[in-house]
Order: sequence, then C-alpha cells, then structure tokens
Amino acid sequence: MTQPPVDLAGAAGSLARHWSPEVVARLNDYEVKVAKLSGEFVRHRHSETDELFLVLSGTLTIRMDDGDVTIGPGEFYVVPRGVEHQPVADGEVHVVLVEPTGVVNTGDR
Amino acid sequence: MTQPPVDLAGAAGSLARHWSPEVVARLNDYEVKVAKLSGEFVRHRHSETDELFLVLSGTLTIRMDDGDVTIGPGEFYVVPRGVEHQPVADGEVHVVLVEPTGVVNTGDR
Repeated sequence: MTQPPVDLAGAAGSLARHWSPEVVARLNDYEVKVAKLSGEFVRHRHSETDELFLVLSGTLTIRMDDGDVTIGPGEFYVVPRGVEHQPVADGEVHVVLVEPTGVVNTGDR
Repeated sequence: MTQPPVDLAGAAGSLARHWSPEVVARLNDYEVKVAKLSGEFVRHRHSETDELFLVLSGTLTIRMDDGDVTIGPGEFYVVPRGVEHQPVADGEVHVVLVEPTGVVNTGDR
C-alpha cells in the first residue's frame, strides 16, 4: 500500500502548539515540517545549513541584518547558512520548513 | 540587499514549456524547481534519491506498482528512491519539485 499525500494546510492546522515544528515527511536526509507561528521568535542562525520557509497562510517577516523579507501565502524564502535571522509572525502564520534532519529551530541560541 | 521571496504560482505560471522544470532556489545541495505538466510522463525511477512533488494547481496522479497516489493543490508526496513511477497530469498541473542538485527528470530512462 502506498501512503496518501500530505495535506499541508490540514497538517499545519492540526498542530497544538506554536513554534513547535512537526515532521510530516522525509526526503533522503532532509525533513519536511509544518509549524504554526505567532509573534516573534528568537534571533538565531544555522552555521551548517540553509533553511527554507514556505508560507501556507498569514504573513511572515524574516528580519536580517541586510534587510527584512516579507513572505505571503504561496511564497517561500531560503535563509542562507550563517545568516542571523528572526522570524516574526504577523498574527497566526502557518509555514512549511525544509531542512536537514536534526536541525534545531533555535540554531545557535 | 536580500532577495525577494519566490512566488511559486507566478514562477510556475511563467514557464514556457511542459515537462521542463526550472530551478527557482537552492537549498544546500538541493534544488527547488517549478514545472508545468500536461498528460503522461515516461515511467522511470531514481535509484539514488527520493523525489518530492508538491501540487500548486490541478491534480497529479503518480502511478506506481503498489498503487496510485492522487495529489491535489496544497498536497505533496515523496516518491521513495528506487520506486518506478509515472506522473500523469489531468489537464494542466503546476508543481514544485525538491530533489538533490543534478537529478535528471527522466531518471533511468
């Protein structure tokens, strides 16, 4: 039997807690996660990996030294490795994250 | 200056040809691609990698020996490495692909 596809909006909507990503699929040595965000997260960086943020609903701003990026539904952004970033959710925001297995969401903090 | 986010629907909609994925971002040694599909693709497999299909619009069926998977907008599926699969687009379908850099879309064919 094959697995059914993953419904991203449904998976994100069923999360119980904010800032607590849940793995919904694996792709080789990477994980696809959904998360729901609200408010400001701690500023941090990942020295070893890029990090992909895809917004499903709401608006996510990523504050960085070189400028902010604002990501709306259906848009994604890749934060390059080593770049300090602070995700800020304007109200409730649902996102997909793609990153190597084992990455901690607070990076160096 | 930071790059703007990638608008997935816009990127897929601006593609000129079917079955010709275009890279829209890189994530470490992986590529994020958009593609527009129509009709049946060649049955193939990738012996070295999983392959992620995220549907933006339309309905994509992936035929496999163990059963078919039907993927609608906002849903994704990971075809495991080594599994023969045939993507079949019911009309015009726009998708996002995530896979390691250098993967050829026809796999072993």
